[in-house]
Amino acid sequence: MFLPAAAVVFYATATLASSEMASVQDATLEQVDEKTDNYKEIEHVDDSLDLLIYLILLTIAILTTWVFKKKRLAYIHESGVSVILGLIIGAILRYTGPAHRSLMADGTIYDPNSTGIISWNVVPTGPKANPGIPPNMLKMNISNLTYTYTYSSPESNMKPEDLTDIQEKATFDPEIFFYLILPPIIFNAGYSMRKKHFFHNIGSILTFALLGTVISTFVIALIMWGVTQTMKIKMTFLETLHFGCIISATDPVTTLAIFTDLNVDPTLNGLVLGESLLNDAVALVLVGSLEDYGKLFNTSESDATQVAAIFKAILHFFSIFFGSVGLGALLGVITAILTKYTHIREFPILETSLFFVLSYSSYLLAEVAQMSGIVSVLFCGICQAHYTFSNLSQESKVRTRQLFELLNFLMENFIFSYIGVSMFTFSRHRFEFLFIVGALFAIGVARALNIYPLSLLLNIGRKNKIPCNFQHMMWFSGLRGALSFALAIKNTVTEPRQIFLTTTSLIAIFTVIFCGGLTSPLLKFLKIPIGVIQEDSNGDTLPDRDGYEEPESESQRTPTQVRRSVLARSWKSVDSAVLKPLLTHSRPTLMDTMQWMGPVARWLTTEEQMTGDSSLREYEQFARAERKGLPTTTTTNNTTDDENTLSHGD
Amino acid sequence: MFLPAAAVVFYATATLASSEMASVQDATLEQVDEKTDNYKEIEHVDDSLDLLIYLILLTIAILTTWVFKKKRLAYIHESGVSVILGLIIGAILRYTGPAHRSLMADGTIYDPNSTGIISWNVVPTGPKANPGIPPNMLKMNISNLTYTYTYSSPESNMKPEDLTDIQEKATFDPEIFFYLILPPIIFNAGYSMRKKHFFHNIGSILTFALLGTVISTFVIALIMWGVTQTMKIKMTFLETLHFGCIISATDPVTTLAIFTDLNVDPTLNGLVLGESLLNDAVALVLVGSLEDYGKLFNTSESDATQVAAIFKAILHFFSIFFGSVGLGALLGVITAILTKYTHIREFPILETSLFFVLSYSSYLLAEVAQMSGIVSVLFCGICQAHYTFSNLSQESKVRTRQLFELLNFLMENFIFSYIGVSMFTFSRHRFEFLFIVGALFAIGVARALNIYPLSLLLNIGRKNKIPCNFQHMMWFSGLRGALSFALAIKNTVTEPRQIFLTTTSLIAIFTVIFCGGLTSPLLKFLKIPIGVIQEDSNGDTLPDRDGYEEPESESQRTPTQVRRSVLARSWKSVDSAVLKPLLTHSRPTLMDTMQWMGPVARWLTTEEQMTGDSSLREYEQFARAERKGLPTTTTTNNTTDDENTLSHGD
Repeated sequence: MFLPAAAVVFYATATLASSEMASVQDATLEQVDEKTDNYKEIEHVDDSLDLLIYLILLTIAILTTWVFKKKRLAYIHESGVSVILGLIIGAILRYTGPAHRSLMADGTIYDPNSTGIISWNVVPTGPKANPGIPPNMLKMNISNLTYTYTYSSPESNMKPEDLTDIQEKATFDPEIFFYLILPPIIFNAGYSMRKKHFFHNIGSILTFALLGTVISTFVIALIMWGVTQTMKIKMTFLETLHFGCIISATDPVTTLAIFTDLNVDPTLNGLVLGESLLNDAVALVLVGSLEDYGKLFNTSESDATQVAAIFKAILHFFSIFFGSVGLGALLGVITAILTKYTHIREFPILETSLFFVLSYSSYLLAEVAQMSGIVSVLFCGICQAHYTFSNLSQESKVRTRQLFELLNFLMENFIFSYIGVSMFTFSRHRFEFLFIVGALFAIGVARALNIYPLSLLLNIGRKNKIPCNFQHMMWFSGLRGALSFALAIKNTVTEPRQIFLTTTSLIAIFTVIFCGGLTSPLLKFLKIPIGVIQEDSNGDTLPDRDGYEEPESESQRTPTQVRRSVLARSWKSVDSAVLKPLLTHSRPTLMDTMQWMGPVARWLTTEEQMTGDSSLREYEQFARAERKGLPTTTTTNNTTDDENTLSHGD
Repeated sequence: MFLPAAAVVFYATATLASSEMASVQDATLEQVDEKTDNYKEIEHVDDSLDLLIYLILLTIAILTTWVFKKKRLAYIHESGVSVILGLIIGAILRYTGPAHRSLMADGTIYDPNSTGIISWNVVPTGPKANPGIPPNMLKMNISNLTYTYTYSSPESNMKPEDLTDIQEKATFDPEIFFYLILPPIIFNAGYSMRKKHFFHNIGSILTFALLGTVISTFVIALIMWGVTQTMKIKMTFLETLHFGCIISATDPVTTLAIFTDLNVDPTLNGLVLGESLLNDAVALVLVGSLEDYGKLFNTSESDATQVAAIFKAILHFFSIFFGSVGLGALLGVITAILTKYTHIREFPILETSLFFVLSYSSYLLAEVAQMSGIVSVLFCGICQAHYTFSNLSQESKVRTRQLFELLNFLMENFIFSYIGVSMFTFSRHRFEFLFIVGALFAIGVARALNIYPLSLLLNIGRKNKIPCNFQHMMWFSGLRGALSFALAIKNTVTEPRQIFLTTTSLIAIFTVIFCGGLTSPLLKFLKIPIGVIQEDSNGDTLPDRDGYEEPESESQRTPTQVRRSVLARSWKSVDSAVLKPLLTHSRPTLMDTMQWMGPVARWLTTEEQMTGDSSLREYEQFARAERKGLPTTTTTNNTTDDENTLSHGD
């Protein structure tokens, strides 16, 4: 199934191996046919068992999380639970089950009584293209039949005797993370983001994400380069820079969950989440730029070309980043237009499917264009929440939100369990105590040099300053998680890369359990306001506990903050004059805001928009919902809130 | 990513291939490291493009379906749309893009200006385990580094020049169908089934499914065996029997959709859907038994052992079938117990996740136990609908239904597009005109010999007879689809298997477009009642157009139908005396039905069940829904309907 690279190995049953070893010398096609069936069946059972282990792990994690939530234990979050359970299961898999021990080398069967891999040593014959570089495919002729073999990996540096089937199997292809696990998590982060406080603080967030991540990367790289000079394994600065990128991506998952549970002060929430989302994107693109730079650097020797390479890398970074943002936004806009100008909302299942398929396309399209799918899917999520959401039928609104919430929950718990399990089962770990301690120190220092100086700088321009307690909290919120891990596990061929993986895994485990657990006590200690009313991304009001209005919403709009205001204000004017009227059913319409466009503006305005009458639409939805036995809604705040705020605002 | 077997091949860029061919003779680990990055990146882009093609296809299919639905064109269903679009895209991929043509043989680069596979011929060296049988893994040493290669496939019998990258890539690993595509479709069929008419007609459904599928298999096998005698490629009876199994699984998808759209007579609906669901299961298990029988048959020669082998196969069939049913039901029961006796419903996201994870586990558990995951997941779906559903919070009820509806829609459309695309892109098709025509004739005859004689037989015992027009309609509803295709594509090593795949694909395409398109005209022609009120699987009443009550609900309970009544009645008494009180919050409680159990019965009864007071629970749900900005429900029919019908019934 979907565990290629290291894990797709075909198992032969012991019976098969022993009974037929002597008798069958020349296999006919029919026998190969039957054997293919057998191999596939055994492999299938193995893969199923492997997946089942993770599902059982998820089940236990869900039940444990429930118990913790019920007992109101805020000290441990579900990602912490998943990591700990993963570690336990990983350890069990690792230290039990010698009966499965069966990996063989040199064509001999290690344990003839177990199922296992049969491997042959081969040498090339005939003409070879590119000698010295392993080809993609081998062809071998046995008994007049040709069999093809595909490239798997350079041989692991672990002794084969140390590996069991189940351990090897419990390791997924890293591509899984990039195709199946990360996109829903990142999309959901964009789709469910409280966009108001994101856009209000966009200047500060971009500063922290762009400048801050670069600072963090270089500081970590420098410190770690220093550390590696005292180690046996030497690394180049380019390698430690790579590590700096990988580990600079902070994880929004755990912090987001705790902040949301506690309704923490919305400005702090906006800053921390905006930063951690965007710095994932920045770190990801930085890694790509760095790899490209590395290639240029390696092939060219002169100083001039090296400077050119640096500039090329910077240019590459910006083109990738903004290109991906553009692609994501484009897909969001296409969805908004399709949902606005067609009546596909009469069939919510089609509408939801379209929404889902187009959102995932934003990821794939960016990857095909060699840009960053993660950045693209994040901004697609933001666009979908900002424009498309208000065009959707009531049923699709609920369905899309719940779908992505569920996917996010499952994927998130899976990845944290996996980080735990793979600590024990992944065969290419390399523990370097000094490197790990150094890295923990480095990320602390790097984050401090990111948050405090930049806050100082930003506070010059900000009317509502970022207070010291917020800065401390932001420093502490630098948890590492899914993205760092996925970047680290992508390539583990060389020793430095293996050290990176081990260190990243341990840092993720440590920060998620330790920092995640101490988040709420620290919030109390720093006297940061919690239980604050917030407007949800889609205009719904979340319940507040004290009925206390957020203090900064007005002050943020005062003209004192020149730079940010220009950015935020110009965005707002384009948004409300062009984009919202064009892409949603909200008012004012294009006929009001862009009168000079005349008939074109008329053509782009829906009847619904003109009459401002959404009652027909709601009636339809009501009727359909009732027909299907779905809960019929008495509230219409989802649909109308956005429109109201806009017509008031303008 | 997840296209191993034939498709996971590593691509090297032309630049890489040409520039480094001469210079690099001895690769260092760092270079291999970089090259691994490169390979993976290129492969990643290719996989993304491949997936993107299918997503674009889905997008077009969704929009086309919408246009057809809007124009009320009942002659073509969405699966037909998907198949036709798939054929078009497949043809485009096949007959355009010679620039991609790049597959190589004999270690030479076919087109040095394109990206492509580099392959070397190899011969084994050193000791070989099992000579004559291809091993799972090859190890090759180049420049002091060892690389591993995993078994991919026996070489395709198509000329390599005929294949392009994109074509090879557009072909997924068949395992994908069994892990990702089929389980949600089959689960949803069970979960959304109108269970009343399923259980009322359980006797007839089981007869058609068990006996009918066996009849169909043998009739098809006989006819096709006759046909192959006139062909150049001879087949054994065992092989045509295999084809009979594959093609006997009728597809519920298209018929279900049309029947539901038109609210067709519920008895006909129950019979057709129940049969097509269960015969999938039966066909699947039959294939497994047959393979086992084949092995026994091949290895033993004496007549006595052959008779024993047949009995073993029959025993195997029944143990697999009922074992799988049991496993599926077990997981359903576990979910019901967990949702009844814990208060996990206070956190709907945890509840839904648990539901999802446990349901999918039923599939994997059965596969690990070497039973049938599809059968297991189907019965798990039925149990979840029958018991667990009524324990769920309102939010989870909506969420689970919508989630599986969406998954089902996407997977279904994907599989039909894929059948279309793979007609052109899959490299192992083999067209045999005579076989295809023969098979079309055979499935018609076989279905007639299944439906008409068994109806005659069943009508002896049935009070409400199956009328002739229903029988004609049942005969016509024998569409072939997802499951047959998945079974056929699983193994395409030998020529007969390749012929099976081609024939199965064509029959699926033909029946889905032709029979699917003629379903509603035929319903009118046969004067079968449509627009009939139905009770939904979960107790909700669907809207009717004429307000006309279903006529058979009472008559079916009359004691005249002895055999069926005994089966249905004994099931009903166990269900309402033990299972419902134990597994749901419905009344009467165990304390009423099983008084002799005393304190145990008391312990197994929830407070909610005793007081019959679900108002507290609903208040909680209301509060939570409001807090999250979800539609708050004013109807409670989902929660109470089941309980009401039961307390009335007993």
